[in-house]
Amino acid sequence: MAAAAAGSGGANGSAHQVGAPTNPMATALLTDQYQFSMAYAYWKAGKHADRAVSTYYLLEFNTSNCRFDLYFRKNPFGGEFTVFAGLEECIKFVANFKFTEDDISFLQSVMPMCEDAFFDYLRKTDCSDVEVYSIPEGSVVFPKVPLMRVEGPVAVVQLLETPFVNLINYASLVTTNAARHRHVAGKSKVLLEFGLRRAQGPDGAISASKYCFMGGFDATSNVLAGNLFGIPLRGTHSHAYVSSYMSLDEIPDKSLKSKDGSRVCKDFVSLVTEWLQKIQLADSSCGVFGETNQSELAAFASYALAFPTNFLALVDTYDVMRSGIPNFCAVALALHDLGYKASGIRLDSGDLAYLSIEARKVFRTIEKEFNVPAFGKMIITASNDLNEETIDALNKQGHEVDAFGIGTYLVTCYSQAALGCVFKLVEINSRPRIKLSEDVAKCHDGFQVSIPCKKRCFRLYGKEGYPLVDIMMRESEPSPKAGERILCRHPFLESKRAYVVPQHVEELLLCYWPGTSNKPRVELPSLEEIRGRCMQQLEKLRPDHIRRLNPTPYKVSVSAKLYEFIHSLWLNEAPVGELQ
Amino acid sequence: MAAAAAGSGGANGSAHQVGAPTNPMATALLTDQYQFSMAYAYWKAGKHADRAVSTYYLLEFNTSNCRFDLYFRKNPFGGEFTVFAGLEECIKFVANFKFTEDDISFLQSVMPMCEDAFFDYLRKTDCSDVEVYSIPEGSVVFPKVPLMRVEGPVAVVQLLETPFVNLINYASLVTTNAARHRHVAGKSKVLLEFGLRRAQGPDGAISASKYCFMGGFDATSNVLAGNLFGIPLRGTHSHAYVSSYMSLDEIPDKSLKSKDGSRVCKDFVSLVTEWLQKIQLADSSCGVFGETNQSELAAFASYALAFPTNFLALVDTYDVMRSGIPNFCAVALALHDLGYKASGIRLDSGDLAYLSIEARKVFRTIEKEFNVPAFGKMIITASNDLNEETIDALNKQGHEVDAFGIGTYLVTCYSQAALGCVFKLVEINSRPRIKLSEDVAKCHDGFQVSIPCKKRCFRLYGKEGYPLVDIMMRESEPSPKAGERILCRHPFLESKRAYVVPQHVEELLLCYWPGTSNKPRVELPSLEEIRGRCMQQLEKLRPDHIRRLNPTPYKVSVSAKLYEFIHSLWLNEAPVGELQ
Repeated sequence: MAAAAAGSGGANGSAHQVGAPTNPMATALLTDQYQFSMAYAYWKAGKHADRAVSTYYLLEFNTSNCRFDLYFRKNPFGGEFTVFAGLEECIKFVANFKFTEDDISFLQSVMPMCEDAFFDYLRKTDCSDVEVYSIPEGSVVFPKVPLMRVEGPVAVVQLLETPFVNLINYASLVTTNAARHRHVAGKSKVLLEFGLRRAQGPDGAISASKYCFMGGFDATSNVLAGNLFGIPLRGTHSHAYVSSYMSLDEIPDKSLKSKDGSRVCKDFVSLVTEWLQKIQLADSSCGVFGETNQSELAAFASYALAFPTNFLALVDTYDVMRSGIPNFCAVALALHDLGYKASGIRLDSGDLAYLSIEARKVFRTIEKEFNVPAFGKMIITASNDLNEETIDALNKQGHEVDAFGIGTYLVTCYSQAALGCVFKLVEINSRPRIKLSEDVAKCHDGFQVSIPCKKRCFRLYGKEGYPLVDIMMRESEPSPKAGERILCRHPFLESKRAYVVPQHVEELLLCYWPGTSNKPRVELPSLEEIRGRCMQQLEKLRPDHIRRLNPTPYKVSVSAKLYEFIHSLWLNEAPVGELQ
Repeated sequence: MAAAAAGSGGANGSAHQVGAPTNPMATALLTDQYQFSMAYAYWKAGKHADRAVSTYYLLEFNTSNCRFDLYFRKNPFGGEFTVFAGLEECIKFVANFKFTEDDISFLQSVMPMCEDAFFDYLRKTDCSDVEVYSIPEGSVVFPKVPLMRVEGPVAVVQLLETPFVNLINYASLVTTNAARHRHVAGKSKVLLEFGLRRAQGPDGAISASKYCFMGGFDATSNVLAGNLFGIPLRGTHSHAYVSSYMSLDEIPDKSLKSKDGSRVCKDFVSLVTEWLQKIQLADSSCGVFGETNQSELAAFASYALAFPTNFLALVDTYDVMRSGIPNFCAVALALHDLGYKASGIRLDSGDLAYLSIEARKVFRTIEKEFNVPAFGKMIITASNDLNEETIDALNKQGHEVDAFGIGTYLVTCYSQAALGCVFKLVEINSRPRIKLSEDVAKCHDGFQVSIPCKKRCFRLYGKEGYPLVDIMMRESEPSPKAGERILCRHPFLESKRAYVVPQHVEELLLCYWPGTSNKPRVELPSLEEIRGRCMQQLEKLRPDHIRRLNPTPYKVSVSAKLYEFIHSLWLNEAPVGELQ
């Protein structure tokens, strides 16, 4: 159906009150318009809550009247794993799902053809009789296996489709992207998320910071994300800060107390210039330290006076090796005289491999020459348009970078900007439903076929502790048991099957929103705990599933019973014509 | 500098209160952490508001103490134009810029090394002495020309860098993407934004809907965006709706009143099945209409009963030509008997060119055979992973699609997920600043060089009404005048220059936030007005700048005076060494 907003007054942007934009998460209107159309059509046909109005169906399991699975079809970024994220936001959405009178008025204005009683129905609607089962957030997941199962009255569950897919899609994508960056950088490197300015909107940036931390980053530059989620904050100054200075005369207060408080250096700037002369004459200059840029020196000295305990300088505003490095070393050595330890440098342009190696050489020479312990271990941060590929290339070349600041490519998921999560009806009134595709080839390998009915999902672990295979089973089947042989079949290809004897069995879908059922509710863990789960799960994965080059696909299977069930249904439900 | 959040308690996701996530736009914390570090360093050095504390500088023009330009370096999507968007959000941000006590406490916890007086300074900080000049939102813009100029105390303006870049970057990118889709689809097609489920977070989706409308889309599926911005809403039902039905028996109330209210059809479903038999026997079946899918027929009939005035059916759940089309036609013809007019169909898979042509043939044959006026003009909507390229390919093949529903590729800007907006210091205390790059090649073509000082920017129009060139000039120069010859120079290449005699001159930067100046404030236009400007500006552009294949770059120039000024500054400020 099509409906235009009533009047054109609403199209005035200024009606959107300055300073108080509506919080998109705080309203049940965050969905596609057709979901309301369908809700109305279900309601009109008396299908919206079959328990109440229809005695037509045999309620075989006496449960809610529809089930939807949320899953994806293909791992992103050419990889063979995905990290599941966004669950907490979905549960919050469900917890707050309620229409205000303003929402109802708006819906009435855009759906004038709907009966009033439908809006009364919406007024009473919430998610109290919806059940949400989910794989824990931060788990490593694979295509076709349901990440979530949502049960309840079809009209309500249908309204959750769009927000759930929205909340899971980007969250899982960017967490996976972060995990991939962590994998290529290695455990010992510090990873900093610098994406706020390039993220898709303010909220996109907040999500990015949260999920990059979840996927293995150490800190963010985003202050609001730091405040909301307790993520450690990191950053240096910008080129503009350096350009804002002209000369050392611009520093009004040149005094700096020593770290132990025992003495005051009245002219820190003179101490810096003395050091600069010393290193220009010293062996460490390697003959390249000529006259350095005075704006830059002033900016560094001024920054050190403000942050003597955290002096980290951006050294590429002018020329890294001729100006940035000697200026930085002069300030760092002056700080050292007063008992402080400089943090390090950031490189934001040029050949990062070469510059980091050259900078390291200078730091080491200074350590020896002026007997400054640990000066050679100065932290070198790199941050110019980095991504998985450039870090991999840096690793292959060799470099001396300790920390990577990553923005655009990380938070926009530049190399693949969306994960194709879908939300498919798998059962209604205890009758399984299957969605076949127009495209025969896609049906053949099961790419576009949903796996019908309510399923239980398990991960089977082998002797070495690696997960071997995920298996989906019918509700009524007994769970797989450790030490017992079980047949795992490819969901669509007859010939692909294998017996597995698991050493350990993990049930995947847990109850996070019990609705009116009496099931115990699993509590949402903290962000730190989710991050821990993610790191641990990636560690447990067989390395060939996670490697960058030609990773091995992880196997996803169905039980023999589910296989037979799918295929009998497929024969019955296939489109008219010769498709099967 | 580096700072970790105080304690680990904050890292608990559940501290982020369920149902009331903080609105990212409502807090001045939405910035990079290093911006606060710099604000402190500026404050500490007495540079934060030079007017107040420093008499050191000659305040040549007696204006605010720093100027930043916001601009981008390269048009996105391989094109030669960009649409500027996001201004309204920036002005809202400025209007609400204020730190709460909670914000201050948080900042104190992560920056424990800063003096208390700095936080007192932040408490008093707002944007009352900041001035914002901008190109009007919805304008077509080009690289290097400032989109915005922000003036004011350096510590405050620096805090605006990250949010401004964030708010402009995605807004301009997705508006440009929408405009490109509009261009390739042509004016006569209906463009529907279906991106909510694939957008980067809920707020990303709201922004996408707003800016796609701005860039030329006709409607969105996003109900919340419809509510917030008055954008028309559109949508059909989903495959799940079709799968949720098994047979025609499931429709409890089969009666339908005729459109004029004069009679009631007691069994609409029988009317539908009668029509289905008729068309199966008729010439229009072209021999392909055999037995159709009964689930689908039930879903369509039920949907028509709910929306008799807006019946639009998704016809590809099973088989478009064998099942979807005949089922749709049967329901549409039954509706027609009762005085209603069906809206049309949606195709979401398969060969869209072929299927739309075949469907159109059937509709036309039915129009003739059963004498149903305008049945052949039934609206055909297509919606399967469409983007600029696929629409272009469809156009080349020939198709009968009237409306395109576009999601993932549109809202995620899949082919280029970020626009590289930058915010560069161009003047401090009336002294021009220039940022050179480590990379000589980038300096050479001016790619990484900022154009210093406060500038006025003009667009010069030619006889045919097309814009010819944008020109940046020094503040002190007289404005270009219609009919008067003016020299336009390439900003960096000596040999590139041309005289232009404009027929019309447009000043680009207008005052949207006057701060403490007495300049008149330009009011923010409505979304409809901005959309109108965008459509009009694209229409005015010379077609070769906007074409998909090998578009001609639009020229951006500087005045002779500004050229000389930049190059004298470049020589003076270039890095030590042989760079120049």
